[in-house]
Amino acid sequence: MNLPRRTSATRRKFLKLVGRAGGTAAVLTTMKELGLLGPADAAERPPLPAPGSGTGTQIAILGAGLAGMTAAYELSKAGYDCRILEARDRAGGRCQTIRGGDVVKEFDSTQTCPFDTGDNLYLNPGPARIPYHHDVILGYCKEFGVALEVLVNENRAAYFQDDKAFDAQPVLNRRVINDSRGYLAELLAKAVSKNALDQELSEIDQERLMDFIQSYGSLKDDYTYSGASRAGYTDTPGAGPNSGTLYEPLGLSELLKSDFWNYKLHFGEGFNQSATMLAPVGGMDQIAKAFEQQVGEMIEYGAEVSQIRKTASGVRIDYTDATGSEKALEADYAICTFPLSVLAGVEADFSPAYASAIQASQGIYAKAAKVGFQASRRFWEDDYNIYGGISWTEQNITQIWYPSNGYHSDTGVLVGAYIWDNPIGEAWGQLTPTQRLEKAIAEGSAIHPDYAEYVSPNTGITIAWGQVPYSQGGWAEWEDEQRESVYPVLLEPDGPIYLAGEHLSYLTGWQEGAVRSALLTVAAISERVQIVQA
Amino acid sequence: MNLPRRTSATRRKFLKLVGRAGGTAAVLTTMKELGLLGPADAAERPPLPAPGSGTGTQIAILGAGLAGMTAAYELSKAGYDCRILEARDRAGGRCQTIRGGDVVKEFDSTQTCPFDTGDNLYLNPGPARIPYHHDVILGYCKEFGVALEVLVNENRAAYFQDDKAFDAQPVLNRRVINDSRGYLAELLAKAVSKNALDQELSEIDQERLMDFIQSYGSLKDDYTYSGASRAGYTDTPGAGPNSGTLYEPLGLSELLKSDFWNYKLHFGEGFNQSATMLAPVGGMDQIAKAFEQQVGEMIEYGAEVSQIRKTASGVRIDYTDATGSEKALEADYAICTFPLSVLAGVEADFSPAYASAIQASQGIYAKAAKVGFQASRRFWEDDYNIYGGISWTEQNITQIWYPSNGYHSDTGVLVGAYIWDNPIGEAWGQLTPTQRLEKAIAEGSAIHPDYAEYVSPNTGITIAWGQVPYSQGGWAEWEDEQRESVYPVLLEPDGPIYLAGEHLSYLTGWQEGAVRSALLTVAAISERVQIVQA
Repeated sequence: MNLPRRTSATRRKFLKLVGRAGGTAAVLTTMKELGLLGPADAAERPPLPAPGSGTGTQIAILGAGLAGMTAAYELSKAGYDCRILEARDRAGGRCQTIRGGDVVKEFDSTQTCPFDTGDNLYLNPGPARIPYHHDVILGYCKEFGVALEVLVNENRAAYFQDDKAFDAQPVLNRRVINDSRGYLAELLAKAVSKNALDQELSEIDQERLMDFIQSYGSLKDDYTYSGASRAGYTDTPGAGPNSGTLYEPLGLSELLKSDFWNYKLHFGEGFNQSATMLAPVGGMDQIAKAFEQQVGEMIEYGAEVSQIRKTASGVRIDYTDATGSEKALEADYAICTFPLSVLAGVEADFSPAYASAIQASQGIYAKAAKVGFQASRRFWEDDYNIYGGISWTEQNITQIWYPSNGYHSDTGVLVGAYIWDNPIGEAWGQLTPTQRLEKAIAEGSAIHPDYAEYVSPNTGITIAWGQVPYSQGGWAEWEDEQRESVYPVLLEPDGPIYLAGEHLSYLTGWQEGAVRSALLTVAAISERVQIVQA
Repeated sequence: MNLPRRTSATRRKFLKLVGRAGGTAAVLTTMKELGLLGPADAAERPPLPAPGSGTGTQIAILGAGLAGMTAAYELSKAGYDCRILEARDRAGGRCQTIRGGDVVKEFDSTQTCPFDTGDNLYLNPGPARIPYHHDVILGYCKEFGVALEVLVNENRAAYFQDDKAFDAQPVLNRRVINDSRGYLAELLAKAVSKNALDQELSEIDQERLMDFIQSYGSLKDDYTYSGASRAGYTDTPGAGPNSGTLYEPLGLSELLKSDFWNYKLHFGEGFNQSATMLAPVGGMDQIAKAFEQQVGEMIEYGAEVSQIRKTASGVRIDYTDATGSEKALEADYAICTFPLSVLAGVEADFSPAYASAIQASQGIYAKAAKVGFQASRRFWEDDYNIYGGISWTEQNITQIWYPSNGYHSDTGVLVGAYIWDNPIGEAWGQLTPTQRLEKAIAEGSAIHPDYAEYVSPNTGITIAWGQVPYSQGGWAEWEDEQRESVYPVLLEPDGPIYLAGEHLSYLTGWQEGAVRSALLTVAAISERVQIVQA
């Protein structure tokens, strides 16, 4: 951030040099290091094809999710002739928002969303947040005028619940977080005072450390922890004589018994989960719709791809159209954005190495599941002072998300379960929607005892991504070994066929991964086309 | 939160019993413990006067800030005849929003705000955030339909800057926070492994603690800290082969050299500063305006009080009206909400104890100062991925606040300084507005080197609360000794004269303190009137 500002011309020249030496990835890396890969200036994104450079080249894009639409948007701006085949009757893929009246189809069930109509009454069944550093997707939001609001991820008013600790009672987030800090600081102070860290730290650093941890843990003058205002009050300070009464600190042994520490306690520190988190006003599909406004004319809906064939001049995609007719789309290149779980079911002229890489990837998909409830009133605000954020539990539902919008309105939609553990998600996928909703209410009642008064199966909707046609999974979760063996194979094209999507990124499960993957593919095709033309 | 739900009738009966035994404060305490003092149901707030119970009783209210308007609102609903004298030409007092064209008067200067017109182009010179547990003010927001949005207080994309460390360069918040966590955890792990804490912790707790701190600090398998994704990347993970490159961890000695730990590192954990923080959409004065809609007819603007006199039947307030005429307002009781710094300048028939308590309080006011700049573009978003939140510095300006609204719009208003240290705030109050703006730009450039390209004295406005007529200070900061000696005196009425305001609360500097103080005063007057009438 302290680099001198360069003129655009100088910057572009520099990036061009870098690009020659190290290819597209090197350019991206360098731009990032220079702080140039940001939403400030679309021209400073990865090298996009020059206007007109794609004229006469046909691209078949399989899937109108964010990856497919990003590719179509950028390629068509350069003159490429793009057509997108989309099996669904809407664009966006997993970038979806479910509102009252929407139909949710899984392999074995069909639900109609029972929510009332209202600006904030929706469930984002797929992606639901955008971290501040996902600057490509945020850049498109800016470019397309998609309004953003803050998504509250961390909320000290929310709860932790674990059957293994605190008699299974929900415990206030601020108490767990800040009592933990207090105990860690106190223990460290004891260790320092016993000279246990003399080898590790100089005397002056030990002195400073004692000041630091006293402040860090809100320790008393004798470096003990006995509660702190940060952890909250049974009776908050108020007016007149009321100076407030602190909570007794939670017991350290009891805190250690719980599994809170197993990521949930630190969730909001995660690279992709820390503040500031954002979300489109009105639902995540505002992004899909914004892209659709740009490339909608290129999309054929209801087009179910059956075969991907290599031809003498490129590719041929066989598909069934919305009327049930068999059709074929010929193109010079194809970009296939299908999840690998879906792609495995499509007949294709892939090389043996490619085909086996796709087969080897079938286990990687997170069978994520979500439940949403419209509540009869915003009891979380009215009774618990919870404005957005997440309560965590060790039960199957994993969490309850409170809406980060519509504050103080009459009703709202809670995420009543968001499961990302594969065995549990798969098991939930085997339940009927009603069974899932009932289970979510039963488990949620461990966090909010009066939960069932405000939510019911009749006001809920659920999705288990493993059961969703054309998705068959939430997102890719590569294991380290697969990242080294399978992943690199799929990053390269197989003849005229390129793959793109969140699964071909290190930001799997994030829209940023999908759009960045698409941009890499766009750059790769463009580079190839220029060579062919030269 | 796990108490069984009672019927309203039972609850009210219970609270009535508590009220008899322990007075208003006891009722408030008990309601809070039961989780009943919330915005859910206005009827469940502290005992409000019964409708009609105030008929025939006149109340003179001095000051149309939130305390005065709250008192007028609740008392008039019960039939009291309220009149409010307000020296300014607007309601709200320190609950103010400055927009383009507004005039800011201090004792020695007059500024006209140079901001453009726009929904989000404003500075809240006084209160600017509402924590989730300030449930009385939030309850009024709900009752009056004041729309709320999230105020981002913690942002891992913001910066810390301290001349004493890191060569005075700004350091990313997420690196400071998470490297600190990592080192604390590593040191504690070393102490445990040296058996330094055998006396403090059982074997099983030590085992669990090691798991806990490994997760807490993102330690490697050998319990060392060598950087973590939480602390961020020089090159963030992206698509294709780009798995990202972690930052090198900051040096522990260097971290300890800084004064970041002196509250700024933990700012967002403060009881009144932790998530979820809220703010009214469109400016804090939306709250003042909402109250004004309720009680505006009772307010006389431009009424400068000169004397507060006790009379045989109550009080007489002498004041100069907007036209310069001398007037008097007679009433049974007075509620004076003036800051004590202002009240000291009014002639009054106070008892000697009361008068000396007011005198003894003159030093308590925080001479807070703020600076606001409209920026020529949202460079913090475009160039730094900063969406709301605060960058901290050890320089005078203390902080730069980024706007929590209008994301991705063309421009926005930064808080370019928010000083709460008294000597510094006082010194800034002695500077001319232009000098303050210039100094804020110079100091802010230590955080954003290109700051001066986007903000200028010509697009700034400043306020130094010590210099503001009718305020003469930002808020009360009682010292412990004064809380015991002076404060209790001022909580009691002096004959027919009651005081109210943020200064008479343990939430000084917060609107919640003002409205809670007003409600206590309302309850006290009502109780007295019932006794008088009985």
